Order: sequence, then C-alpha cells, then structure tokens
Amino acid sequence: MTTPLACPACAGTWPRPDFRIADLDASIAYLHEDQFFPGWTLLVLKRHATELFALDAKERTTLIEEVSAVAHALARVFGAVKMNYELLGNQIAHIHWHLVPRLAGDPRGKEPVWLQEHAARALPEAERIERIARIRAMLGR
Amino acid sequence: MTTPLACPACAGTWPRPDFRIADLDASIAYLHEDQFFPGWTLLVLKRHATELFALDAKERTTLIEEVSAVAHALARVFGAVKMNYELLGNQIAHIHWHLVPRLAGDPRGKEPVWLQEHAARALPEAERIERIARIRAMLGR
Repeated sequence: MTTPLACPACAGTWPRPDFRIADLDASIAYLHEDQFFPGWTLLVLKRHATELFALDAKERTTLIEEVSAVAHALARVFGAVKMNYELLGNQIAHIHWHLVPRLAGDPRGKEPVWLQEHAARALPEAERIERIARIRAMLGR
Repeated sequence: MTTPLACPACAGTWPRPDFRIADLDASIAYLHEDQFFPGWTLLVLKRHATELFALDAKERTTLIEEVSAVAHALARVFGAVKMNYELLGNQIAHIHWHLVPRLAGDPRGKEPVWLQEHAARALPEAERIERIARIRAMLGR
C-alpha cells in the first residue's frame, strides 16, 4: 500500500516531530502529547500498513522487537509495575502502538487507561525535552 | 519464572477450557466469555511471563506470529474493518492478548472497546461451539 494522502502519519503532521524520541528500523517512537499517564509513548510504523497481518514476518519481527525494547526502556525510566501495549487504529488506522507505563498508585490501576477521564496534560517544553532525553538514553540511542 | 499459584492462567481456572479455540506453539486462543463485541478472543501465553521483554526474541517472534494469525482469522470470520490488539495485564499479569474485531456499525467504533458500557453477552452453548468452530476452521486447525 502506498502512503494515503489522508493519513496524518504519512503526511508527517502526526505525531509532532518535536515529540520524537528515537528513529528505529521499522518504527519511530514519540512521546504522547498527553502526559497525564507519565511516559505514554507512541510507536509508529514508518510505512503505511494497518494490520499486523499486512506485514511480512520479518517486518513483524523487527516491529515487535522495537515494541519490546521501547516498553522495556519505559518500564525502567518510569518504574512501571506493568506495561500496557495497545495497537488499535480506530481513528488513525496507520499502525501505531500505545505503550503506557502503569505506575503504583495510578488512577484506574486495574483498568485500561481509556477509562480515566482527565484533562490532557501537556508538559512544559523543558520538561518534555528532559523526559524524551531520559527515554532515549535508556534506549541507548 | 515458575507458575505462580495465584495466577489463574497457570492454575487452569481462566480462561475456561470449554472456550478454547486452538492450542498453538507459544499460546492458546480462547473465545472471550463476553461476546458483546462478536469474536473477541483471548490469546494466552502457555508459560508464565508478564512482559514482552521478559521473553527471549525467538519466543516473542513465535507469539507475535500467533497474534497475527489469529487476528487475521478473526478479521475474515467477522468481516472486521479494523482489528484491535491489546496486551494489558492490569488485573491478570500473565501475558494475554485481547484480539477484538471492530465491525462496521460497532458502538464506539472510533474508540477503545472499554468505553462501551454494556451487559456481558454470554452465548448459548450451541452458538458458542459454532463460533469457536468457525474461527478454528479459518485458522486451519
């Protein structure tokens, strides 16, 4: 599949480039703009595809290794008691993972993050840059 | 990690054996008891582990191939417009994937399934057996 004009991931308008954590082989990691859940990260496939089974096995392996490595880095940086890994695409079908460290004392700690109504928490720029740097360093990039 | 006594997946009490779809190499697929979203399937790792990064790369590859194959079968059986893949573990940490076909006309079609309040829909036994058989056949098992 080529890059559809209507896909914001392909158009480069989403996620925002200034939230980029690391450029990996198959995917790019970005800090989620809403940091109400600290460390929430998006891992976006570089090419346009919408389902795991649309990838070939080698590409799928590369992607899951990147999912695992980023999740591991997030777990260590934020002291997660559990990582949540979600590939949904109900709004933007282009393959992207929500990788969310769940912390001790999290609201709704036993439930999916989606059930927690909240105002989006945008970090001040300096804090965002520092948070991205910490994750990137843990990734060894 | 050995099999913790408190883990219902290790104890064999969850998911229910009569909901089993297929026994794969690294995981076992079960129809979710609540079929409000038709085709919702659980894919449970055979051994006890709680994070993707706790697996070795070979096991991770096997698991993601099984996730992909089961998702593909579900997409075809139920005519999904999108598949949702979720590895959470906030209540039962033992690695298990929620694989949910999202259908045209789904309630909350643009949102995660968790936002849709609903009474659980248990299928009559004959319908459950038939649904499991259709998924199994599509998997070629």
